[in-house]
Amino acid sequence: RVNADRLWDSLMDMAKIGPGIAGGNNRQTLTDADAEGRRLFQTWCDDAGLSMGVDTMGNMFMTRAGTDPDALPVYVGSHLDTQPTGGKYDGVLGVLAGLEVVRSLNDLGIRTKHPIVVTNWTNEEGARFAPAMLASGVFAGIHTQDYAYARKDPEGKTFGEELKRIGWVGDEEVGARKMHAYFEYHIEQGPILEAEEKQIGVVTHCQGLWWLEFTLTGREAHTGSTPMNLRVNAGLAMSRILEMVQTVAMENQPGAVGGVGQVFFSPNSRNVLPGKVVFTVDIRSPDQAKLDGMRARIESEAPRICEALGVGCSVEAVGHFDPVTFDPTLVASVRKAAQDLGYSHMNIISGAGHDACWAAKVAPATMIMCPCVGGLSHNEAEEISKEWAAAGADVLLHAVIETAGI
Amino acid sequence: RVNADRLWDSLMDMAKIGPGIAGGNNRQTLTDADAEGRRLFQTWCDDAGLSMGVDTMGNMFMTRAGTDPDALPVYVGSHLDTQPTGGKYDGVLGVLAGLEVVRSLNDLGIRTKHPIVVTNWTNEEGARFAPAMLASGVFAGIHTQDYAYARKDPEGKTFGEELKRIGWVGDEEVGARKMHAYFEYHIEQGPILEAEEKQIGVVTHCQGLWWLEFTLTGREAHTGSTPMNLRVNAGLAMSRILEMVQTVAMENQPGAVGGVGQVFFSPNSRNVLPGKVVFTVDIRSPDQAKLDGMRARIESEAPRICEALGVGCSVEAVGHFDPVTFDPTLVASVRKAAQDLGYSHMNIISGAGHDACWAAKVAPATMIMCPCVGGLSHNEAEEISKEWAAAGADVLLHAVIETAGI
Ligand SMILES: NC(=O)NCCC(=O)O
Ligand SMILES: NC(=O)NCCC(=O)O
Repeated sequence: RVNADRLWDSLMDMAKIGPGIAGGNNRQTLTDADAEGRRLFQTWCDDAGLSMGVDTMGNMFMTRAGTDPDALPVYVGSHLDTQPTGGKYDGVLGVLAGLEVVRSLNDLGIRTKHPIVVTNWTNEEGARFAPAMLASGVFAGIHTQDYAYARKDPEGKTFGEELKRIGWVGDEEVGARKMHAYFEYHIEQGPILEAEEKQIGVVTHCQGLWWLEFTLTGREAHTGSTPMNLRVNAGLAMSRILEMVQTVAMENQPGAVGGVGQVFFSPNSRNVLPGKVVFTVDIRSPDQAKLDGMRARIESEAPRICEALGVGCSVEAVGHFDPVTFDPTLVASVRKAAQDLGYSHMNIISGAGHDACWAAKVAPATMIMCPCVGGLSHNEAEEISKEWAAAGADVLLHAVIETAGI
Repeated sequence: RVNADRLWDSLMDMAKIGPGIAGGNNRQTLTDADAEGRRLFQTWCDDAGLSMGVDTMGNMFMTRAGTDPDALPVYVGSHLDTQPTGGKYDGVLGVLAGLEVVRSLNDLGIRTKHPIVVTNWTNEEGARFAPAMLASGVFAGIHTQDYAYARKDPEGKTFGEELKRIGWVGDEEVGARKMHAYFEYHIEQGPILEAEEKQIGVVTHCQGLWWLEFTLTGREAHTGSTPMNLRVNAGLAMSRILEMVQTVAMENQPGAVGGVGQVFFSPNSRNVLPGKVVFTVDIRSPDQAKLDGMRARIESEAPRICEALGVGCSVEAVGHFDPVTFDPTLVASVRKAAQDLGYSHMNIISGAGHDACWAAKVAPATMIMCPCVGGLSHNEAEEISKEWAAAGADVLLHAVIETAGI
């Protein structure tokens, strides 16, 4: 078993970097805080005897050598970046549990046949630069690096500029590495494991996603002196689309979600009807037909809603992945590890997207989940217990040993 | 008649300060651009022989002496501040037409019995610091100066700090001045005069207003892994309130408007359901019963909408004035001036709020309006013609001469 206290202490130390305003973290990708978090992780990896490789997307690969020079590495990882008001565990747990696996193997003097590579993927969250899982997506050949470098944050700064600014452009070609297997341990970010009182989620699938970005064009006009019948009200159109997205998601129950996280009014002045409203829609389902059906419905209904108000409507898909089925052999190794360790467990579908979804495109991949309090994530109040954290790390340790061989 | 070219040239010169991005202006109150605009206006007033007084709210009073030492001044004014994406005429026309009246009297060698004071009121727009007409409101005893100084812009800077920073805290006590009469010339900001092909609006009333600021509290949660039935979705509640405001305004037709100009999602991240949504509602009517009825309806329905979603709802009234009836004698003088000058004219109710609404609390006051293209205002594309501008200034000149006496 891993050292639960050491894992927990590392989680708490990392959480000191980029503190939030309510007990969580604001360590958004490619900020100074991200750079500081990377340096701390690097120091820990140095101490554990790992050698570092960094690719041109800033992905960090910390290698523990294997005994077989020809064997491809087993990768274990997740991300250190957070939401603007994020929790201490989302992503971080997977990276530091990977480090804890290595530390435990060091303690036990166990050497594996395959090397083990603890990975920190750049910009998993997608909060600052859409889409999410950007750097693992380039690694897996889903996006080009040029596309990724050109992504802009809301202030207009590009991913490429910011990666350079914080000093984490590595020299490795992205995606050149080959993986024997990829494991990602993550908090569930949903309520199921806690409700079912299970310690371990054996992740069999991940639901697919569409991120749509709407730009509605109304006419800026005075809120007082513009009669109701002369308004071209982009804000009203946004409201109706938001309600329609809710309806579409509800009609696809169970097994679908839809919501809006980001809204920008322009000029955003009290006595001006908005001339422009930009907002994002996030729809997901593990069922490909539902996912695509929801997208089609939203994209056909939104223009009709806008047309009735004279509002211009354009939509761009800024993020997408299809539902993912994880590798059955690795899934079985996770289930067996939980069983052997005596942890309660159940099959689960990931509601969130993860770097594992892209890794699964280029290697056998799977995930392990632990519960989180109230299913809450993307919230500074995100919480897990030390025991929950350690249980999943134990499972990770066993699954990695089985896959990497002794 | 006034010098139409000179008035137009001054409008164009002022528009060079704080240029917008689409041909209009961004000269928001208490910014560096506002300070620069004030200095230019001051220079012009110096050249016209006016003496300056500034009060502790930064209101500028530029006096042309009268022949009767005991006569109270006739005030003529409006505001030089603009919306973030405002037009070149909203407010500016009233101030510079006041200056043009004085310049024309100088040209003609006419001296009036009552002094004439050309006034620039601070923060009429209310875009940066709510409420609108803040400084004329303090002048009229509606707000205390302490209240005004404590108003914050979206970045948290206070009115008091910013007034001091730009160097326009004067030494006069606010509201100490007494007015014989107050005239404000303004573009209509609505479509009626243009549609009716009238050159002059004789403003008899101004509709009343409520500005409500809603703070909705949901629960920040992951857009992907949070099932629909566990969401506490403040964004959805906002949408439903926005639609309800629209319904309430439509049910009060004719003679009422309602809309939303400003929305802030928090944390405003694509994959986080908003934990907090702050937005503003602007409702107006010239009919007191309708105005208060709409407010009561919105304030009773919004909490019900929120409750159904488990969302917390609080509302604060951040701006208000009752419908205003302008002084019948001054209104008649405006109508007579238009008639004498041969300008087509009609009675009109102001859809927007104006400093004249507060001045009317402490002195006989009225307004003059000219059309604007397409009724468009609070938009950089706001437009009027030189001839429209001059016609209203002519009317202002005649009404001022009649009221100030020769
Ligand atoms: N795990 C996680 O929150 N990833 C961010 C991408 C997503 O929204 O699913
Ligand atoms: N005239 C004008 O636009 N004033 C700003 C206050 C209001 O919204 O009516």
